[in-house]
Amino acid sequence: MKEAWDRSPPLRLDPRRALIDVLDQTQLPFHNRRRELGTLEDCVGAISNMVVRGAPLIGLVAAGGLAVAVSADPSDANLEAASVALIASRPTAVNLRWAVEGMHAALRSVPPGQRRDAAWRYAAWLQREEHACCERIGEHGYTLLREAAATGRAQARGRLNILTHCNAGWLATGAWGTALAPVYRAWREGLPVHVWVDETRPRNQGARLTAWELREAGIPHTLIVDNAAGHLMQRGEVDLCLVGSDRTTRAGDVCNKIGTYQKALAAGDNDLPFYVALPRSTIDWSIADGLGEIPIEVRSQEEVLRLEGLDSLGVIYCLSQTPTGCAARNPAFDVTPARLVSGLICEYGVFAANERALAPLQAIPETAFTPAAPAGDFPGVVHGLS
Amino acid sequence: MKEAWDRSPPLRLDPRRALIDVLDQTQLPFHNRRRELGTLEDCVGAISNMVVRGAPLIGLVAAGGLAVAVSADPSDANLEAASVALIASRPTAVNLRWAVEGMHAALRSVPPGQRRDAAWRYAAWLQREEHACCERIGEHGYTLLREAAATGRAQARGRLNILTHCNAGWLATGAWGTALAPVYRAWREGLPVHVWVDETRPRNQGARLTAWELREAGIPHTLIVDNAAGHLMQRGEVDLCLVGSDRTTRAGDVCNKIGTYQKALAAGDNDLPFYVALPRSTIDWSIADGLGEIPIEVRSQEEVLRLEGLDSLGVIYCLSQTPTGCAARNPAFDVTPARLVSGLICEYGVFAANERALAPLQAIPETAFTPAAPAGDFPGVVHGLS
Repeated sequence: MKEAWDRSPPLRLDPRRALIDVLDQTQLPFHNRRRELGTLEDCVGAISNMVVRGAPLIGLVAAGGLAVAVSADPSDANLEAASVALIASRPTAVNLRWAVEGMHAALRSVPPGQRRDAAWRYAAWLQREEHACCERIGEHGYTLLREAAATGRAQARGRLNILTHCNAGWLATGAWGTALAPVYRAWREGLPVHVWVDETRPRNQGARLTAWELREAGIPHTLIVDNAAGHLMQRGEVDLCLVGSDRTTRAGDVCNKIGTYQKALAAGDNDLPFYVALPRSTIDWSIADGLGEIPIEVRSQEEVLRLEGLDSLGVIYCLSQTPTGCAARNPAFDVTPARLVSGLICEYGVFAANERALAPLQAIPETAFTPAAPAGDFPGVVHGLS
Repeated sequence: MKEAWDRSPPLRLDPRRALIDVLDQTQLPFHNRRRELGTLEDCVGAISNMVVRGAPLIGLVAAGGLAVAVSADPSDANLEAASVALIASRPTAVNLRWAVEGMHAALRSVPPGQRRDAAWRYAAWLQREEHACCERIGEHGYTLLREAAATGRAQARGRLNILTHCNAGWLATGAWGTALAPVYRAWREGLPVHVWVDETRPRNQGARLTAWELREAGIPHTLIVDNAAGHLMQRGEVDLCLVGSDRTTRAGDVCNKIGTYQKALAAGDNDLPFYVALPRSTIDWSIADGLGEIPIEVRSQEEVLRLEGLDSLGVIYCLSQTPTGCAARNPAFDVTPARLVSGLICEYGVFAANERALAPLQAIPETAFTPAAPAGDFPGVVHGLS
């Protein structure tokens, strides 16, 4: 059986037609619509308007966008201009810059006449790398879920209850996901998993994206408001928490969607494991203290003041929920201190959230794209440590 | 200057016309509309449809409803039938039963011919008792806010930042409020207070009611999503938390709106005071262990799945925010263990959240309504302990 992400791929590369097509995530969960992006402008717009979102997916779409641009004009000048435009499409996303800069550097060394082919091969290679990385995260996380499913409480209940926050699934990465990769793997292995989906105000990624992608994959799940997680933990209805990370310090502090810290506190107070799943690439080796060193993006207050959903005519619509003139503060992320994190699940294994345990990860060499390699023969993900 | 609750009173008794009129809270914060309730059915409907809400206010409206009913027919049979109907209008509200049963008992001893007058006097007395109780809570809580405002951080910032959850203000009690009474008192005394208002999903009482009533009172405030509270505490932007309570055990465990527990955890993790304000009447002396002994109401999943707000035409409207067929769990309250509570602020003073500290409270006699007392000469609130 095809995986859910194969049936509704968040990104599809189409070298033959020199375009990419994406699932329009602004329309989810109401409409399953795709968009063909045939110009650089289309690609930049899709990223900046959040038609695609999730740091890893944005990086992959940017790489596809560069291939689209190079297909139209493989000159040095256009390669440069397109890279600049793509990097500027969402300035805070680290994966975006990393993907575009790496691809730009690789293509510079290829003669313009061969760039079109190399660009599509690079974008495809990056996508395979990313998906293989997520699959490995799922493999390592699965061992934790299997252990948790063997505890008396989960056995007595007949299912393993996992709580997640925001969306760190295949909609955010293209396949598998990070936090949800272990869930998909466990489901495939026959573990009776059930996911508590935090609504994740103010953008409601849980209600809109995570609930949708779990439904598409056939995995049992129940939506809750962000306020309810602690209560469910107190009542013994959560076995384990699994979240993603936007940025992780070398000491294991985790910056993730606003509200993650409160879940971690509740997990700690109830002696429940709180795991964070992330590709190694989200670890920022230059900083240790997340609270002191990670600037937190404060987004528009409109996200808090207004509610978006589907009206009875099937139109996506906005409502106001506050008194006229009400002010709101809208920090988009928070920092969960390493002391509240049971472990970091990455493509190389599961690591304790502290500097000493994480250090060996930094030494593993990155796989590099070799433009000379024949199509289809891309290097796989590095296997190490675990 | 008139207080905000005098300009838009949540409940007004009108003995002359034998009716009560209430602020329609289902229309807030969009429309400031009043409803005249001239029959028992009107009053029962207003309570069950949440035109009025907040446990203390419901009790007062029920007392007013009994006066309305007795005005139409003062017979024993009608007194009995009206009491039963009012108590059934919202079965879980303790204040409702307590108010109606007390008033019923008092009116039974009054000859039917004098019941109309006695009923309105009783309802007015109950209202004055409730408001005096809240005013005393404000007085005791104010001393805590004054101390908090004197700390270096609040001084440096030039304002005292208080975080509250849900609505425990004058919209819930008729005047002053419980959790917000200290804030109104502090504002009157010139303290530079500012309130972080938790949105309070799923019913959004923070965004809709607390933000509105603070605005009406002219008190600076900022709305945040429930997810953001912990982050603000980490960043030193909260000085003190103040919440209400729906039910408190004799050991000091606090049952309040879902999400309260997560705020208390965040306050504890950041060494911030977490105070709960409540009338003594919400203490349930029969139970000690809140987690084990308080059943938690699970409400309709529709409250989570749907979003309510004002559309661009000025109509209150609902939107769907989830995939078709999505299930949600909607527990309405949670329990904050006494160990996370810095103190309980009630009409008799501020008490530590433990059985020994609270015990003396139980011994204070209740004030009783004396039907023979002349109109306007109602007993005041008991002053004790503090």
